[in-house]
This record gives sequence, C-alpha cells and structure tokens, in this order.
Amino acid sequence: MSSSTTAEDTGRAPIWSVSEHLEDILATVHPLDPIELQLLDAQGCVLVEDVTVPVSLPPFDNSSMDGYAVRTADVAGATEEFPAVLEVIGDVAAGAPGNLTVGPGQAARIMTGAPLPPGAEAVVPVEWTDGGLGEGPVGTMTPHSLAPEGASGEVRVHRPAKARAHVRARGSDVRSGERALAAGTVLGPPQISLLAAIGRGTVRVRPRPRVVVLSTGSELTQPGEELTEGRIYDSNSFALTAAARDAGAIAYRVGAVADDAETLRATIEDQLIRADLLVTTGGVSVGAYDVVKEALQGAGDWEEGSESGSGIEFRKLAMQPGKPQGFGSIGPDHTPLLALPGNPVSSYVSFELFVRPAIRALMGLKDVSRPTVRAALDSREPLTSPSGKRQFLRGRYDEEKGTVAPVGGSGSHLIAALAHADALIVVPEDTAEVAPGTELDVILLR
Amino acid sequence: MSSSTTAEDTGRAPIWSVSEHLEDILATVHPLDPIELQLLDAQGCVLVEDVTVPVSLPPFDNSSMDGYAVRTADVAGATEEFPAVLEVIGDVAAGAPGNLTVGPGQAARIMTGAPLPPGAEAVVPVEWTDGGLGEGPVGTMTPHSLAPEGASGEVRVHRPAKARAHVRARGSDVRSGERALAAGTVLGPPQISLLAAIGRGTVRVRPRPRVVVLSTGSELTQPGEELTEGRIYDSNSFALTAAARDAGAIAYRVGAVADDAETLRATIEDQLIRADLLVTTGGVSVGAYDVVKEALQGAGDWEEGSESGSGIEFRKLAMQPGKPQGFGSIGPDHTPLLALPGNPVSSYVSFELFVRPAIRALMGLKDVSRPTVRAALDSREPLTSPSGKRQFLRGRYDEEKGTVAPVGGSGSHLIAALAHADALIVVPEDTAEVAPGTELDVILLR
Repeated sequence: MSSSTTAEDTGRAPIWSVSEHLEDILATVHPLDPIELQLLDAQGCVLVEDVTVPVSLPPFDNSSMDGYAVRTADVAGATEEFPAVLEVIGDVAAGAPGNLTVGPGQAARIMTGAPLPPGAEAVVPVEWTDGGLGEGPVGTMTPHSLAPEGASGEVRVHRPAKARAHVRARGSDVRSGERALAAGTVLGPPQISLLAAIGRGTVRVRPRPRVVVLSTGSELTQPGEELTEGRIYDSNSFALTAAARDAGAIAYRVGAVADDAETLRATIEDQLIRADLLVTTGGVSVGAYDVVKEALQGAGDWEEGSESGSGIEFRKLAMQPGKPQGFGSIGPDHTPLLALPGNPVSSYVSFELFVRPAIRALMGLKDVSRPTVRAALDSREPLTSPSGKRQFLRGRYDEEKGTVAPVGGSGSHLIAALAHADALIVVPEDTAEVAPGTELDVILLR
Repeated sequence: MSSSTTAEDTGRAPIWSVSEHLEDILATVHPLDPIELQLLDAQGCVLVEDVTVPVSLPPFDNSSMDGYAVRTADVAGATEEFPAVLEVIGDVAAGAPGNLTVGPGQAARIMTGAPLPPGAEAVVPVEWTDGGLGEGPVGTMTPHSLAPEGASGEVRVHRPAKARAHVRARGSDVRSGERALAAGTVLGPPQISLLAAIGRGTVRVRPRPRVVVLSTGSELTQPGEELTEGRIYDSNSFALTAAARDAGAIAYRVGAVADDAETLRATIEDQLIRADLLVTTGGVSVGAYDVVKEALQGAGDWEEGSESGSGIEFRKLAMQPGKPQGFGSIGPDHTPLLALPGNPVSSYVSFELFVRPAIRALMGLKDVSRPTVRAALDSREPLTSPSGKRQFLRGRYDEEKGTVAPVGGSGSHLIAALAHADALIVVPEDTAEVAPGTELDVILLR
C-alpha cells in the first residue's frame, strides 16, 4: 500500500489522498478468472482470447438479391425490347441448395443468400426480368407455396449482367484463419453478432463480478415499514446495489445489519461464498458504535489454520464527503472488501470514486472510472471548500454551455440534491474558494 | 400511417423515407401501462407519479459527528488549557435514542445520526475533547463493547460550540409534503436512494418491455453446431436480443424458424403471450420464399370473432441497407411487430433506427434514439452513395478530432466491419458523393 505523504509532512495521524487510496485498491483488485459463457450471457464482458475465424464468411458464393442465376453470355445485350429468354430449371432457396447446374440458355431462380449454382456466373435481380410471367417487368416473385410453377417455364431478362454481379464472394466478409476479435474486446451486440456468425456458441470472458452490498446501523428501517422514533430508512443498500448493477456487476443487497460486531462478522462470513467483492456502509468513523471497524480490523485472522485475507485497513482520506474509508481483503479467498462511510451522499460518492473502478477492474475493463470533463462554474456566489481536502459537490452539467451548476449544499446527508444532480464537481485540495466562471473537473454520472 | 411523398412524385411503387417510417412506428407504439415495482426492480424505468415526501428528512434533529451533545453556555470559552469539564450522562447511539436529557454541566456522548437529546444545543466532535480519558485531545472513541465506562465519568471539552453546531436539522434535506421526484424521472441509483430514504418500498413505473426476437431462414444453423453445405450460422437473433437488452428491454431469443409460413404463424402466436413487441428478421423482400411477408400480410385477420391487430404492412424504404421493412400489430392485444430484413448489417441498422426507438417509446422515455453528432469524413477517397436513398455506413468516430472514418464497405453482409465500428455514418438522400473532410451526421452506437 502506498505511504501517506501527508502524514510524513505533518507528523500527525496519516491522511491519504483520493488518488493514493484508489491506487491501492486497483493494485489489490485483480481481474476475475475467465470462464466460458453462452454468447448472450457474455454481453458486456471482456473477451480474454483472440478469436480466430474457423470458416470463411460467407462460407460460399451466394446471391445478394432475389433473382435468376445466369451465364453472362446468355444475357449479353439483353433489353426490355429484346429480352434474353432463358429456360428456368428450378429454384435455389437459401438453406436448400439442391443440385442444379446452369447450362447455356438456362437460368435458376435464386433467393438472397442461396449458393450460386455451378455454371452460373452472375445473378440478375427479379426486377430486371418478367418474373416468368411474360408480361413485362415485375417487382417481386410470387411465393413458391402459391405458385410453384414459378420454378419452371421461361424467364425474360431485360438487362445484361457482368460476371459476379450480385454475387457475394466466399470469404468477402472474413476469411478462415483471420482474427475476428482481439482479446480485450468488450462484447456488445455487433461483436456478439460476429461471434455467432462464425459459429461460436460460447466464448471465454471475464465474468461479471458478484457484489454483496451490506448496510450497517441499528437505526435503519426497511423502506415500506413504519418509521419509529429515532430511526431512518435504509437507503444506502438500495443505492449501492443499483449503482453496482449500473457498473456491470451482479449485485446482491443484504438487508441492514444492526450495530453488533458479532452479527456483522457472521453475516459477512455467510456472504463470502457468493461474493467477488463486499461493500459495507456505515460504522467506519470514530464513534463508540462503529461496528464495521470493530468487526473487521482483525478480519485477516478470522480462520485459524486456513489462509485468510490480509485484513481491512481503516484510513482517513483528504476528501469531503467520504473521509473515513476501509479497504482490504478477507476470508480464505482474499475477497476484497470496501467499507464506505454511512452518510448517504458520502457512501454514494465513495462508490463512484472507489467501488465502481474496483468492479470494472474485476471485469478486466480498461476504463474503470467515469468520464471527466472540464466545465466552468455556473454560480452567483463563489464556492468555498475545505483546504487540504478534495471536495466533491453535486452539480448539473450543461454540455451545450460547457458549465456546471451546484445543486444543494455540501452536507453529506442531502440525498434530494444528489437525486437532482448528474455530475460531481471536483474542487482540488489546494483550493479554498472557487470564483464563478472558474474551470473545474466534473465527473459525469450518466 | 403517413403517405409516401416519393410515391406521389414518381408515380411508381410507393417508397417511404426513413423519417416517415419511424414516425409511423412511434405513432403506433404507446408507452406500456404502469405497474407497481419493488424499488430495485424499477432501476432504469420511468416514474409515472409525482412522489411526495411523507416525512421530513432527516426525520429529527441529529448529530453530524461522533462527539458530545452539550449546552453551549457550558463550553463557552473552553480551551485545551482551560477545558470545560462536563459530566457524561450516557450514550445516544443511532437507532437507540434512549431518554436522556442534558442538564447544565452535563454532556451526552452522541454518535453520528443519533437524535439530539432534549436540553442539548450543539455537538462537539470527539476530536475537540479528551474522550473522557483525561489525557489531552483524542482522535477517536473506544468501542462501547470494549470500554462501556466511556458512557459515564467526565469529559474535558477543548473548544466552544455555537448553537446548532454539528446538528443536522429536521427537514434540512427534504420536508414533508414537498415533491421528491416528478413523474417522468428515470430512476437511477441516486433517485432510488432518495425513494428508499423517504420510505418507499415500491414505486409506480412503466415496466421494461418484453421483446421477442425471432430469426427466419431455412439456411440458419445454431452457433456451436456443425455447418452443413449451403447453410450459415444464425447471428441476427443473437445480435438483436443483445441490442434489445442494451436498449432496456427484457429480451427473449427464439431460435431460428424455417421458411414455412404455417410454422412461423404458429411460433408467433405462441410467443404473443410474453411479448410487448415482436421482432423478426428475414423473409421480407421480393423472393419466392419470403415467409414473413407471406405469413403476416393477412395477420390482422388471424383470429375470427376476436379483436385483432391491424395487420402488418410491408414497405420499401429509401435507405441502404434496410430497404424492405414490415411493421404493424398482430393478435388480440394489437402487439406491435417489426419485420426486419435478414442481412445481418441490414437487420442491425434497422434495429438501431426503428426497434430501439420503439422499445424506448414503450418504456415512456423521451430520448428514443441514439445521440447524433456532426463529424468530418476521414477518408482518402470520396464516398459514393446511391442517390435517393439515405445510406448508413459503418464508421469509427474520433471524438478528439471530430472525424469519422468508414470501416469496411457498404455490403449488408459485412458483419466483421460492423463489429469494429462504433458509429453509423449517415449519407443523406440527395447526396451521391461525399468528398473527404465533408461534415456528416454520425449516429453514435456506444
């Protein structure tokens, strides 16, 4: 873990910067081991193998139009007035190649995607013919089920065709042996399309991490239940479960746990089995009932005789909100755990800064953090900010104007303001006052 | 449905523009009826009610710090050298308010979030005290479980506090009766946080639409199986299922259906029960085996004696790729159905232009289409484009440079190029050639 420079400078209790804390987290959280997933289950995941094309695409020369497969010499010079008249020897439908061979003076009726039959050199679209009806140009074929006679008789062709016209050549999309997708590719719909097209039913990717979210606090009541004196509703476990899903995780919300160290340890031990990452809120500060700190400070030593996590370290960060933070790993599999502060805004901001990157690092993604832009402060009054701390204020970003306006105050309990914000305004550590119009970093939340 | 202006101009078979077709779809697809969902199940959905705050947040005056609740007169003038010495009368923990009253010369040890006890006017943080240890300033409290005596004895306070210092006032976040969120709000993590905080366990939203994706074609083989002569792998049903999920839908992939009208009708009738929207690929052009067209052209009349859909209309659109398109509604519930062409690139582009907006309209979202930006063509050669058609080419967008470079050719079978693109380049109907450097509309796919 990085040493706290601030601590060395001041000789006081060590204080870590936001960047140092994030660095330590990303140095500890490694991408999950890859697994083979069904194609649609791999959506949004990172490919861990170079995928090679096993068979060229298209696998055979085929028609790009509904029309007639012909020999070019037979239609040379054809016009509507002096059409080439060809014998229709049958249908070539997609998926039913048959065994037709097109000889001189012959044509096979052919459908889009059907293999070009031997002997044929080009396809003339049905719109360049009389469709076998002998009554001038047509725009369409009659369905075979209604008029099977369309697969025989004669067709009049009104225009010549060059060799290979309306023929998609074997391998013109990708060739056997080429690399279809490189390791590291994130699988969206077009990449899934290509993998299916080359016949891949499963694919090797890093799975979505399973994230268990626990809130702590004896004051927490489940939404929908009655609120008794001195209690508040649990919002953190809902907010962070939703945020974890938004970041790409499979998230499990565990109800609020009361402020009792034994209960919390037992709950966390129970949850380890389904967790790639644990996130707690609350109980990390300097109070006498800060149960997360109490329960987890020795967590590395839980299981005697078995390999265990390295334990959780609790720190003060030079940030507002979100000063108290815990991080480390626990249990036999060294499962990473982030212990966030309990104030709703603090926990949400901490999630964006530390948990979201951890989730995306577990997925093997390169861009682990939200995009940041520069924007000018749109405010009547200057902003004040505690010096020595990086402050994250809620704001609304106006892309058109390139400005950001603060929403609500800096209080870490102001959930309503957060719900009306779409950005976090970053006020650097060395800045105590920000004049209106000043350019600042802005983290975009959507 | 809008009339085709092109048809009137030319006197030929009617041709619709991309915009006309989208307009017709959006005029037919209405937002789904709202339902009451559990909070976390409503993530990403649109709220249909104004949500009013039932109880102020915070619900009571409470401490923003771990410290001591005091009367301000008792700590006036306190310094480290001449501390105020107060009798500790007990603990006020969050969720365990107790019934302490702070009298003159007294202090209650109080935790973050705990209600301010009667008699107290302010909170002094533990860092401003000796923590009851009599040995100078401390940075933290000892856990109550280890040192229960911390809740009694004496505390030395080293600094004065103003009235209401470190007290979060009842209602300072939101007040009872205020509007928390307006109808139309999309529920992300911060909005879910607020709803939980005001006690809402469920919320009334438009649900995610259930989208059934079917591909058609006797040539289609399931990825992972062996490819026999004249056959290709089904990629469309995978690509569009993934794309539907990406757009916000709950998507069901139905395996490829062979080119047989009766089988297709039976499959679609079976699927109607779980579909808010049906999407098919293939079989919509002018061929003799275009089974979707054959099966669905009379679909409005399927069920005698029962109310049924308005039927599916098949059109030619002035676009490339994606000329043949079907759209309408079927079955007793008038379930909307979009019949897309079968070439992989055509079906994907059609999805982006028509199905994604339909899904998002069903959700009640306002922004139904992908964002479009202007970008300069980054290409050595001019692009050629069929005049009279709006062309959508695959491209890579460079945000920094504001340019877009074509990827692969215009062939509608080029899946590999699509998998390496992140944008669609839009060449307008009246443009036959685009010089390098020309600014064009670009649809961003990510």
